[in-house]
Amino acid sequence: MAVGSGELGTLHEVAGVRMAAVSAGIKKAGRLDVVLFELAPGAVTAGVFTLNAFCAAPVTLCKQHLASAQPRYLLVNTGNANAGTGEPGMQAARACCAALAQQAGVDEADVLPFSTGVIGELLPHAKITAVIPEALRALQSNDWNTVARGIMTTDTRPKAASRQLQLGGKTITITGISKGAGMIKPNMATMLGYVFTDATLSQASAQAAVQAAADKSFNRITIDGDTSTNDSCILVATGKSGIDVDALDAAQQEQFYAALNGVFIDLATAIVRDGEGATKFVTIAVEGGATVQECLQVGYTIGESPLVKTALFASDPNWGRILAAVGRAGLQQLQLDAIEIWLDDVRIVSAGARDAAYTEAAGQAVLSKEEFTITVKLGRGTHSETLWTCDFSHDYVTINAEYRT
Amino acid sequence: MAVGSGELGTLHEVAGVRMAAVSAGIKKAGRLDVVLFELAPGAVTAGVFTLNAFCAAPVTLCKQHLASAQPRYLLVNTGNANAGTGEPGMQAARACCAALAQQAGVDEADVLPFSTGVIGELLPHAKITAVIPEALRALQSNDWNTVARGIMTTDTRPKAASRQLQLGGKTITITGISKGAGMIKPNMATMLGYVFTDATLSQASAQAAVQAAADKSFNRITIDGDTSTNDSCILVATGKSGIDVDALDAAQQEQFYAALNGVFIDLATAIVRDGEGATKFVTIAVEGGATVQECLQVGYTIGESPLVKTALFASDPNWGRILAAVGRAGLQQLQLDAIEIWLDDVRIVSAGARDAAYTEAAGQAVLSKEEFTITVKLGRGTHSETLWTCDFSHDYVTINAEYRT
Repeated sequence: MAVGSGELGTLHEVAGVRMAAVSAGIKKAGRLDVVLFELAPGAVTAGVFTLNAFCAAPVTLCKQHLASAQPRYLLVNTGNANAGTGEPGMQAARACCAALAQQAGVDEADVLPFSTGVIGELLPHAKITAVIPEALRALQSNDWNTVARGIMTTDTRPKAASRQLQLGGKTITITGISKGAGMIKPNMATMLGYVFTDATLSQASAQAAVQAAADKSFNRITIDGDTSTNDSCILVATGKSGIDVDALDAAQQEQFYAALNGVFIDLATAIVRDGEGATKFVTIAVEGGATVQECLQVGYTIGESPLVKTALFASDPNWGRILAAVGRAGLQQLQLDAIEIWLDDVRIVSAGARDAAYTEAAGQAVLSKEEFTITVKLGRGTHSETLWTCDFSHDYVTINAEYRT
Repeated sequence: MAVGSGELGTLHEVAGVRMAAVSAGIKKAGRLDVVLFELAPGAVTAGVFTLNAFCAAPVTLCKQHLASAQPRYLLVNTGNANAGTGEPGMQAARACCAALAQQAGVDEADVLPFSTGVIGELLPHAKITAVIPEALRALQSNDWNTVARGIMTTDTRPKAASRQLQLGGKTITITGISKGAGMIKPNMATMLGYVFTDATLSQASAQAAVQAAADKSFNRITIDGDTSTNDSCILVATGKSGIDVDALDAAQQEQFYAALNGVFIDLATAIVRDGEGATKFVTIAVEGGATVQECLQVGYTIGESPLVKTALFASDPNWGRILAAVGRAGLQQLQLDAIEIWLDDVRIVSAGARDAAYTEAAGQAVLSKEEFTITVKLGRGTHSETLWTCDFSHDYVTINAEYRT
């Protein structure tokens, strides 16, 4: 299942980026499972990665390469996460980078490796290196649909987003792809997001931009609370539009970053809409918090409560479960009588108890929709945070009880 | 579903305690839904209660009464939690206590109220007060099976435990009942546990004992991570055995507290075995932690991971999910190469990666059992903690998507 149409719309070419997806038979024969991006010389690349202590071998290597070189290739495989694999896993990741570097005539550090799939099995790197020539031959400039499909695992549909904006008579394009449907509670990044722009960005601006954008997009979604070992989010600025963002005036910079953040949010929310077994796409807005942190605590406690999520699946306005989640979120000195809880524009809780005007029918009407917002007003400060989640259905259990079989 | 036979064994009488369960038709007609305990004069009662900020009206009132009087009656209803009900909820809880107090000839503060069931609906207190005469008439001294059934909600079976020990030629009896199957991650106590002993305990000793015992039993279980608004755990010491625990020597005190803690653990693990939709009973042991807190962080991250729990349901030794949970538990400076993970006596992870001798068949053999232990050795300190959880099955979703209908 998945929420919404999943239509990708027009995906614009980003000058300076070519791409290909091929099949290496890593887990299943005939499935696209290796994706290659080629970046033009001079492209600036920045990334954020999982904070899971058991981060995968490719994540460790990717961070090393990113710190030491200006990447020319992004090499992605699905079907195997190459995590929990120790030193043999590092060697396997290096072997893939080395083979590509040798055939493409670049340094090994110019290749960034990414893996996603089952944790704990050794990466069959020979299968990957065997298809590198085919992938290099297949590179083309505008094949987002294919590469978005090529990075899918339990995803039911490809995820991509694209925006263009005009600044000073020139056009800037931003296009990205993402994947993920389970083990999704990114912490500093998600598994996997790639966003490309033809704007010029300094390394520092690119790093700040990817961090800020990921923080308000991939780092604000949760499907099951499980932070992956492989989360990676990459921003590439090729500079081919001739527009240097750092040189723009403040208003124009704001326009650019709004568009960039929009692409990130589109990609992150596409992951939630395609969450494993998802039938509902739910926005959780927490307002009036004393700190950002406490808004997030409340939001995630609701968004990860199995009881709330199963009630959402049932379209059951069992709001007592939302209230109980707010109550156990760990906020000190919570003033219950200041708290309101809303389902879209229906106030279900006021002064810490059931709103006098609330009717079950009104709550039911909201929860019967495919997309809606739960708003919690804490009434104790000026901070607000928004995050996105989905429900918990029978299909989530089915998918995750059968993933490896 | 539920794990194990659920056989209750012999439940011993505790002198000074009488009990009854009757049907008030709170949610469903004909179902036992009101339980009454009568305590002999002089019985010492201590309790611990939920830390959920939205604690229910009866919890608030119960704490007030416990602080001001020596309880003579415990009045429990199921079918309605009387939580999220504001001031009308407090009035309803008071009305129940007042009616019982008046008919039993005691003070209102001598009655401790408890409620469990749906959150956010006003308690139909008239239904409860109407059956109080019947409950008073039905009081008898040894009917644990009936009252254990009388406090059930989504439980599939009653939970009770009983132990006796001989000290200085006299016999001490400890018998208790509990309930709970969902919204179970007690925080300071659980919903609901009642333990009775005919030992003599001072108020301070009783409070210390219930706190310590709950901490290592009810506060070490999780079914879905959702801390209830109504968790309450009560210890009553009637003193009728003539044995004053405070006056015993250290070795004898140790014997008594071991038996008491054993009853608490029996009751707590019975809740997990009857967890909503449970097909597996899983002990999680975390060893070698630098602090108690970090052992618990790791244990709960594993025990509440939807991905781990669905893999347990599938009997799938997808240990990468356990490893990923350890990695996201938030421990600083985790030395991956010191970490081991075991399924019973099968080592699956050593030096932070798949153990060289591990075979899928060996892991599968453990996970196919109904009960087993996941052990994580952190290798960074001397602290250990044990907690208990269950798997996440289709039935969990079914039960919680249909709870109110």
